[in-house]
Amino acid sequence: MEDKAHDAPQPHPTNILNSTESWPQQAWTHLESLRQASPLIQCITNFVSMDLVANVLLSAGASPAMIHSSQEIPDFTPKTHALYINVGTLTSEWLPAMKMAAQVANECKKPWVLDPVAAGASGFRLKACLELLKLRPCVVRGNASEIMALFKGSVDETSKGVDSTHESTDAIQAAKSLAQITGSIVAVSGAVDIVTDGQRVVGAKNGVPMLQKITATGCSVTALITAFVAVDPLRPLQATATALSIFGLASEIGMDMAKGPASLRTHLIDALHGLDRATVLQRVNIGNV
Amino acid sequence: MEDKAHDAPQPHPTNILNSTESWPQQAWTHLESLRQASPLIQCITNFVSMDLVANVLLSAGASPAMIHSSQEIPDFTPKTHALYINVGTLTSEWLPAMKMAAQVANECKKPWVLDPVAAGASGFRLKACLELLKLRPCVVRGNASEIMALFKGSVDETSKGVDSTHESTDAIQAAKSLAQITGSIVAVSGAVDIVTDGQRVVGAKNGVPMLQKITATGCSVTALITAFVAVDPLRPLQATATALSIFGLASEIGMDMAKGPASLRTHLIDALHGLDRATVLQRVNIGNV
Amino acid sequence: MEDKAHDAPQPHPTNILNSTESWPQQAWTHLESLRQASPLIQCITNFVSMDLVANVLLSAGASPAMIHSSQEIPDFTPKTHALYINVGTLTSEWLPAMKMAAQVANECKKPWVLDPVAAGASGFRLKACLELLKLRPCVVRGNASEIMALFKGSVDETSKGVDSTHESTDAIQAAKSLAQITGSIVAVSGAVDIVTDGQRVVGAKNGVPMLQKITATGCSVTALITAFVAVDPLRPLQATATALSIFGLASEIGMDMAKGPASLRTHLIDALHGLDRATVLQRVNIGNV
Repeated sequence: MEDKAHDAPQPHPTNILNSTESWPQQAWTHLESLRQASPLIQCITNFVSMDLVANVLLSAGASPAMIHSSQEIPDFTPKTHALYINVGTLTSEWLPAMKMAAQVANECKKPWVLDPVAAGASGFRLKACLELLKLRPCVVRGNASEIMALFKGSVDETSKGVDSTHESTDAIQAAKSLAQITGSIVAVSGAVDIVTDGQRVVGAKNGVPMLQKITATGCSVTALITAFVAVDPLRPLQATATALSIFGLASEIGMDMAKGPASLRTHLIDALHGLDRATVLQRVNIGNV
Repeated sequence: MEDKAHDAPQPHPTNILNSTESWPQQAWTHLESLRQASPLIQCITNFVSMDLVANVLLSAGASPAMIHSSQEIPDFTPKTHALYINVGTLTSEWLPAMKMAAQVANECKKPWVLDPVAAGASGFRLKACLELLKLRPCVVRGNASEIMALFKGSVDETSKGVDSTHESTDAIQAAKSLAQITGSIVAVSGAVDIVTDGQRVVGAKNGVPMLQKITATGCSVTALITAFVAVDPLRPLQATATALSIFGLASEIGMDMAKGPASLRTHLIDALHGLDRATVLQRVNIGNV
Repeated sequence: MEDKAHDAPQPHPTNILNSTESWPQQAWTHLESLRQASPLIQCITNFVSMDLVANVLLSAGASPAMIHSSQEIPDFTPKTHALYINVGTLTSEWLPAMKMAAQVANECKKPWVLDPVAAGASGFRLKACLELLKLRPCVVRGNASEIMALFKGSVDETSKGVDSTHESTDAIQAAKSLAQITGSIVAVSGAVDIVTDGQRVVGAKNGVPMLQKITATGCSVTALITAFVAVDPLRPLQATATALSIFGLASEIGMDMAKGPASLRTHLIDALHGLDRATVLQRVNIGNV
């Protein structure tokens, strides 16, 4: 468990957003709420990402807790405000705890978010991701390959059979279909990040290409989505889009000072910690795709 | 295991401190001894903290070795100069190795130090921490919540029953009582870090608030305490106080250059590596509370 | 698994080097090939090193994938271009997956590289390393103590019995003998890095002493060797020497800006990402020892 997490003040999640607010205003409201509420986010994530995930959550204002033992989940998960599950370094030993945590979160009406890292890398992994999907995550975020693997796996299971012909269109269509099948918000990271509830499709357009040269940035933005959903649980589509843009915006600001991937990582976290209202209102770029 | 550790020169721990030395002078003597002796510190710590713990120990002059397999402990723990156990990402698979390592350290008269991360997060975790406490760590370092959870767990076990009424006073009283019950030095991190042997209470007053925005800084300062105890094993109260202040001082120096939590982490490690005698003598701030 | 890895373009390893090229030219050709091909490198490495290993590979142009479950190896390892195995935080649970992955790599004619971290730290670890050695890694990289532990373990097994008398000469002789016994390229890190196939001995002379104050730099350079071998699998001696020098050169450039170990780590990765042809041709220093 991350060391400072359990002393965090208890947040009071509220649905404070007015749907007529602009996207930049919504992004700022989410970030400000996160800083004030400091929700406790349980993270069951892969070994590679634990350090960056914890530091991104702390810098954004959340309280991360890396607790993954099945002995602790019944006691601990009910105390959290949202749960993040990431299958990056999945093994058969970890999978039961992930499922247990998702089930406890569901029972306690806490939102949980899935990062299906490398969903198509093996049969074992795809099956595990599809089993987790059935436990109704509030949000699923992956890249195009991951989301398409989940979609194809899901439709194979339901015997619908769909062949893809065009990569990027496929990702949007796969994301929409997956959202319809599962009831989850589905996000696809890319040059433009796509977010859909199966009907609406929103694009989050902040970010820099060099993020792909830093390990665990995808894992970290999914963790940030979890924290944003924790402070606006009734509007997960909006929370997902604003989290993606806030993270992307922090990378844009970091990029101005970066000399490469490692200094970008440092400056991104610093920028996320220091983001102010004027910058968010001016630069968050969310809209139609 | 950390890659460079096993080539470290073998230290010759000595009790070189004159008790009439000032606290800043003691801090410098400890740091200088650590750099010269480069003691081998076995770390059984959580996944989130391994990178930072290893880098903090290396920067301070110690040789970290992350070895946690029960197959290796009988061979390896006797070669080390001190042992660090941190329960951050505890599971039932890791607990037996932690206990075995603590027992081997005791048999070999090596000091060992406990970080009871999130001791109160679950029944499983509290029980594990209390079992480890019974293996007589030389030092226990936690935050106020953790130390109070241990104290309450301990007194519940011994049927004394104590209710707390005031948070910060409680932490000091809980720390003193816990030290008396266990025989360990107990340290409580906070705005001022408290160190007690059950009778004396010392305050280490260096540090910056932004440390709380960096994951595993608590884990890392406990690792540094372990290294300081390795070079002055007969005076663990002093070694604990000076380690806390040296780490805090490095964060103060780092803060002068930091633009946020990630650059603070970088500058803190650089500052710890570069700390010189004049700065330590001038700025270490330890005294009564 | 590292988050971006599985979307990497598929490389087409070719043996493009002309053996009459100078060492600096070979180093540049390797680095350029790596950036173009972006080979998929499966890493089964220790917990401490995962973050740095992944970031070093990404910065150099490779696509790391941290997948260690025996459930996934049969599906996944055949898709990779090379395999990296590091025993740093070895346990009996991880060892079978390491062996399985090495065997699958051998069956698929993929090169694999071994980092025998702390080979002599325990009987369990030495035995594990010797078992892995029998699975014919393409390259083994360690420090002098590790290589000598492997050599002594190997000759003990084959009842040849050799006593060492002089440390650094021993390391070269042990490395040559180990290469002859195993058929692997053997590299010994030090002030000058030694690379041998049992006959030829090459020295890679780039690098800075402060690398020893950063955890997992040894693990990371072995990962980089794996990536270089992936793009020149028929000339592993050359690929090993150039990888060692390129990493060392990045540390030299990073050192110009570093104020300590943590900023060196950042600048090293940035420098590795930004290395250009002129710098490589001018500063790579490989030759006789």
